[in-house]
Amino acid sequence: MDVAIRRSFLIPSNEIYGSSAGFYDYGAVGTAIKHKIQNLWRSEMLQKEGFHEIETSVIVPEAVLKASGHAENFADPLVTCSGCKQKFRADHLIEENKDAKKEGVKASGLPPAELSALIKKYSVLCPQCKKPTLSEVGWFNMMFRTNIGPIDGNTAYFRPETAQGIFLDFARVIRNYGSKLPIGIGQVGRSARNEISPRQGLIRMREFTQMELEYFFNPVDQTYPRFKKIAHHKARFVEGAVPPHEVSYGEAVSTGLVPNEIMAYFLYKQWELYLAVGIPASKMYFRKMPKNDTPHYSKGNVDLEVETSYGSVETTGTAYRTDYDLSQHAKHSGQDLSVFDEATKQKIVAHVVEPSMGVDRLFWCVLEHCFRDKTPERDWEWFAFPPCIAPYHAWIFPLMKKDGMDGKAREIEEALREAGLTVYYQESGSIGRRYARADEIGVPYCITIDYDTLDTKSDKHGTVTVRFRNDAKQVRIKVSELAEKLAHFVKEGKVTE
Amino acid sequence: MDVAIRRSFLIPSNEIYGSSAGFYDYGAVGTAIKHKIQNLWRSEMLQKEGFHEIETSVIVPEAVLKASGHAENFADPLVTCSGCKQKFRADHLIEENKDAKKEGVKASGLPPAELSALIKKYSVLCPQCKKPTLSEVGWFNMMFRTNIGPIDGNTAYFRPETAQGIFLDFARVIRNYGSKLPIGIGQVGRSARNEISPRQGLIRMREFTQMELEYFFNPVDQTYPRFKKIAHHKARFVEGAVPPHEVSYGEAVSTGLVPNEIMAYFLYKQWELYLAVGIPASKMYFRKMPKNDTPHYSKGNVDLEVETSYGSVETTGTAYRTDYDLSQHAKHSGQDLSVFDEATKQKIVAHVVEPSMGVDRLFWCVLEHCFRDKTPERDWEWFAFPPCIAPYHAWIFPLMKKDGMDGKAREIEEALREAGLTVYYQESGSIGRRYARADEIGVPYCITIDYDTLDTKSDKHGTVTVRFRNDAKQVRIKVSELAEKLAHFVKEGKVTE
Repeated sequence: MDVAIRRSFLIPSNEIYGSSAGFYDYGAVGTAIKHKIQNLWRSEMLQKEGFHEIETSVIVPEAVLKASGHAENFADPLVTCSGCKQKFRADHLIEENKDAKKEGVKASGLPPAELSALIKKYSVLCPQCKKPTLSEVGWFNMMFRTNIGPIDGNTAYFRPETAQGIFLDFARVIRNYGSKLPIGIGQVGRSARNEISPRQGLIRMREFTQMELEYFFNPVDQTYPRFKKIAHHKARFVEGAVPPHEVSYGEAVSTGLVPNEIMAYFLYKQWELYLAVGIPASKMYFRKMPKNDTPHYSKGNVDLEVETSYGSVETTGTAYRTDYDLSQHAKHSGQDLSVFDEATKQKIVAHVVEPSMGVDRLFWCVLEHCFRDKTPERDWEWFAFPPCIAPYHAWIFPLMKKDGMDGKAREIEEALREAGLTVYYQESGSIGRRYARADEIGVPYCITIDYDTLDTKSDKHGTVTVRFRNDAKQVRIKVSELAEKLAHFVKEGKVTE
Repeated sequence: MDVAIRRSFLIPSNEIYGSSAGFYDYGAVGTAIKHKIQNLWRSEMLQKEGFHEIETSVIVPEAVLKASGHAENFADPLVTCSGCKQKFRADHLIEENKDAKKEGVKASGLPPAELSALIKKYSVLCPQCKKPTLSEVGWFNMMFRTNIGPIDGNTAYFRPETAQGIFLDFARVIRNYGSKLPIGIGQVGRSARNEISPRQGLIRMREFTQMELEYFFNPVDQTYPRFKKIAHHKARFVEGAVPPHEVSYGEAVSTGLVPNEIMAYFLYKQWELYLAVGIPASKMYFRKMPKNDTPHYSKGNVDLEVETSYGSVETTGTAYRTDYDLSQHAKHSGQDLSVFDEATKQKIVAHVVEPSMGVDRLFWCVLEHCFRDKTPERDWEWFAFPPCIAPYHAWIFPLMKKDGMDGKAREIEEALREAGLTVYYQESGSIGRRYARADEIGVPYCITIDYDTLDTKSDKHGTVTVRFRNDAKQVRIKVSELAEKLAHFVKEGKVTE
């Protein structure tokens, strides 16, 4: 986290006022990477599949969240200390208790009465006062509450997920697109959860960005057109006590590990996206959630977990939510949310498979897995980001700020930007220092304009030096071919000579 | 608005629950356009200037908004009806009053006592009860209030502007970048204002997206390096009662219409951006705000107004805010927010010029000015978006869904997407119907794959039809040259043969 802050990846929100737990801002470097991850998701999960992207309001009236169940059930177990008046997550306190830990007690997900009993059983103390002053366990609703307009009673919440906005707009979207199933609708946006005790940096934040897709289909056909092409590909799966092992997506469907082709296809897309952003296959796996850990309406939940310094972290959840959400909203709003499906000549309520990804958690995993420590050959810490999500594709340096080299560098900067590459001009410090700074934020290519570039008598005239981040080797490339070659390097993920 | 909803530009938020005044979602077509406008702003206002983009939290603790003045002053005048208990914006009610209108009364910006007097003077009635039952005017704070964590008293707000996040992070950003002025930091993100009576669709929303830039500089140097290059360019300005007239940016600075080169340069960038997204020069102008309409610390405010069906609408405000924001936050946080400026060998608090643009309002203006009604030649309404912000660059059709034409169309779709173009595959309906649907959302190019494309004996083998939106004329282009030519068309803004 220290490196992340120093290198402009992250900034603790409201830092000059002493920061706010659970809130992080993205610095310039972090914002660039975050946007590239989001755009990759858009391209892979939406555009290439012919799906739609919408943007819905963050502030949501209570009626919507009553229908979704959030107003009643979206709560965490809370205890108050009668001494210091502080409030804590009951399940966390229990799991952090020495004796409970020894006995492997899992408190997460238990109802308040059972948590209260565990607090008594293990004599869990207030972590502040170190005394047995904890109250009975109650529920705390995790949504940020507010009020719309000047008249009290118009309760609303900061949305706890972007998905509800998609369900609300489903009727309008499908009507506009000819009322034909299947249809995919996605959204990238901010959500918030009023955590009792946020912790672990970006892993448990109070405000975060989600990338969610709802794929609406008629349940009589659970196939996916492009599934056959990828059925032989493999990923690592965990089920119950069985450790991660390779399973093909075809097998996963035929053995019931994954409920249908649709879900298996989206798992494949997620796995490939994670590989593309720099998570090694050996550090991640899908976990099939046990039946008692999934909602009653679910026909299957599979998480994608990544190993990090905080332990395994769920970064993506995919759920076959059946017709639960549309049925709930139809019931509560009194609107007909069914669709007449031409293929079956029937009015049906569409089923939904929902792949839901957290940007911030994935961003953190990328930072951890792309971090490279100092070595005898390289006296600075650096990041091995894949070029497609590096904060800049290239940094551009004039060797010196004179003799036309800076002007030429600016010219090349503009041409590369025009060609769709993200570039940044740097003229201060020695070239070695500039290489180091580029490495420190994971820029894959450094381009230097030197005397030879401009010297018409040199056999290197019209060429620049391109240095590759990972092996620090350099090649000379013609300015006229630079944009095309760099674009090709980015596409190929080339990071060494 | 009806067309906007039918064509997937906009969706009233929570529509199935009866909508919420002041909230709009973006449909698939609207989202695509909105993102392109945002990316154009990023490219023009940030990347091409070498500025930084950050992303800060939406939920902001009260301390921050006390320092900025929002907690105390960010309020609208409110009246309550003693009959129906409804609440209204006092200034709006007065300005909508027949007699007050006749006398040209401007109520906006007046203090509560004066508004109360005007209500009495014109016998303004409750618009619901039609009776003189309105209360004295009071203030209503326009921020959405909430609480962080389970303990009451940690008041926070949904941010009323993205700018404060930039001021908070300034110290960290500038330290990471070598503490050198000038520096530009921008942000694109959601803000919210709890309007008493939202109205006029996207013009006065409760939740909206801003694109804000803060340019920090040492006030001893108010020049801007690239200003000379653009000083001779002209825009339309309004000052006081003088109607819009052309002024060059150079003149604007030398006559004091605009306080410095920095601000004039950003005005130029805004004007060009507005032209690029389809606002005609004749329908917009800069308005220099009179001294009594600007905050006491301001050294000049200039709005960019666009003529719409709602009248003139302020879509962009640019303000020379001096050192007000950093000084306020330094005072309230107790942190030193000054910078040691190498150029002047002095510790100074940076001055700020802030160009602030509302995405939604601009989006609405673009819709209005690009809308084209039916004509005898074209029996449908359509949109003349410039290609750079059209929801899709191109739609791709197989003439029929057989004989390999659909496969070839899919292949071309993938190749164009790979080349960075936004494209969409459409196979249902007659070609004429598909052209009409593309026109209706402003797609500039339609590509048809027909028998000739695949027929090795045809002299049109290996070519496709490209139809231009504005004149409906068609040309044949080689598949091998299609991506490059389309990219060129987009860049040139070509919309006719």
